[in-house]
Amino acid sequence: MSDLQEFSKNTAREVEAVLDKLLPQASAEPKWLHEAMRWSTFAGGKRFRPLLVFAVGALFDVPKTRIERTAAAVEMIHTFSLIHDDLPAMDDDDLRRGQPTCHIKFDEATAILAGDALLALAFKAIADDGALETDIRLQLISELAEATGTPQGMVAGQQLDILSENKEIDAADLERIHLHKTGALIRFSARSAAIAAIASEADLAAVTEFATQLGLLFQITDDLLDATQSTDVLGKTAGKDEERRKSTYVSLYGIERASELAGETKAAAVASLLHFAERADLLRQIAESTLSRTA
Amino acid sequence: MSDLQEFSKNTAREVEAVLDKLLPQASAEPKWLHEAMRWSTFAGGKRFRPLLVFAVGALFDVPKTRIERTAAAVEMIHTFSLIHDDLPAMDDDDLRRGQPTCHIKFDEATAILAGDALLALAFKAIADDGALETDIRLQLISELAEATGTPQGMVAGQQLDILSENKEIDAADLERIHLHKTGALIRFSARSAAIAAIASEADLAAVTEFATQLGLLFQITDDLLDATQSTDVLGKTAGKDEERRKSTYVSLYGIERASELAGETKAAAVASLLHFAERADLLRQIAESTLSRTA
Repeated sequence: MSDLQEFSKNTAREVEAVLDKLLPQASAEPKWLHEAMRWSTFAGGKRFRPLLVFAVGALFDVPKTRIERTAAAVEMIHTFSLIHDDLPAMDDDDLRRGQPTCHIKFDEATAILAGDALLALAFKAIADDGALETDIRLQLISELAEATGTPQGMVAGQQLDILSENKEIDAADLERIHLHKTGALIRFSARSAAIAAIASEADLAAVTEFATQLGLLFQITDDLLDATQSTDVLGKTAGKDEERRKSTYVSLYGIERASELAGETKAAAVASLLHFAERADLLRQIAESTLSRTA
Repeated sequence: MSDLQEFSKNTAREVEAVLDKLLPQASAEPKWLHEAMRWSTFAGGKRFRPLLVFAVGALFDVPKTRIERTAAAVEMIHTFSLIHDDLPAMDDDDLRRGQPTCHIKFDEATAILAGDALLALAFKAIADDGALETDIRLQLISELAEATGTPQGMVAGQQLDILSENKEIDAADLERIHLHKTGALIRFSARSAAIAAIASEADLAAVTEFATQLGLLFQITDDLLDATQSTDVLGKTAGKDEERRKSTYVSLYGIERASELAGETKAAAVASLLHFAERADLLRQIAESTLSRTA
């Protein structure tokens, strides 16, 4: 197992333990709602965003106790966004990580509410985080809310994405969608650990630039996987982008050029790490493995 | 115009000005989303929760600058909950305050996203509130998240409400639903101003008890209005409760006994104000006017 694989596995285990503590027990009322929240939260996600929180934390030698709740909060926000994006009125997906999506396993009303509850809980998790100074908690809450909402965040990106369906959009539009839809939360994940580390402005800027490029890379490879892999391999319905006539890096550039673009974006991500020299090896590995991922 | 009417009108104007500043401009992208958020936020609500924030603020002589953002945040959470509750998968309402609901005026995906964005923005509004000490902002965010989510908050109440449809439930179940569904946010509204005032434990307890009774009163009168008033008067579809076979104070107790219960609950609310003697006149008037409201 590579260093990154081991780090990633440990991170997933640790963040899942924190999530288990923070989420309401399935035995508490309303059970149906809490089961739905837990179903989607513990459905075997890659924990890519918590990994990024912990990897940036490691770069700055931050004690894990200072970042583990924020990592869990980011994963709650990510899970909420998947639940709502999968709804019939949105992307209408029945399958996620090889399992029925929340509104299929439970029902649509419960899926909406489970998403809402995870969204609120994420902010409470940070507000109550006794390991962080009060001003740092507030900065994290403010930035997380911005990364979640509109006009700078994920919700804005999802809206732009929906509005772009069945339309011709150009490369700048596509990048704008993804800087919001996936980029904002990935950027926050990286920044949050630097903020908890009370990093210098220069360090924070380098981390932010790295995460911006990594977020784009993540999206380009996502589009490539949707176009080239089977539903079985992805654990979610493949070929959805073409079916919904979505503009993607593949539809705009073709598979070959999109693959090249992925390589160039990875190089840009790695270049932003020069600032940290060899201290950033783990982040470099994350960029490499994002480029070569198969699911 | 009574003192309360004037206070209420001024509060609505002031909170709407703050909301206008905090919400993204309709001219910013994605416009469609921001228009939807503004449509539902400025659809002519009574601003009952901000009124409660400001009235408790007045009781403790808190400068309005210390509570106006929290009042706006509460109204954002309330608006988010209305947008999501009106969705086809939930209460499926086409009409709210005499106007098409968000998913009718815009579309279902946009309504889901507009609600999500308002939810995130509410926490940002408080996190960025420079008028409050950092520890107070964190307490407000934590309590607001709890009042919004589950197991203690509004989302839990909505889930319990949905699960109770077409079922026989008893008085204790009904009260539990409403202590969560409407009660939690009303309780937070009152508490938030006391917290901003750095009120004593005894004062905070009295305010909390008042708001708990006021929340129940609000729900009993809501049920009475749904059963007795026309769609035209209410600005929302009347008679929905019976149509959906919901257990309400009217279905459980009948109109006569439910009206008596409203009077008794008002009396309990007013009794909790004895602690403040005549300083609480405005809150007393709010309880009276909630009992006698016609819309």
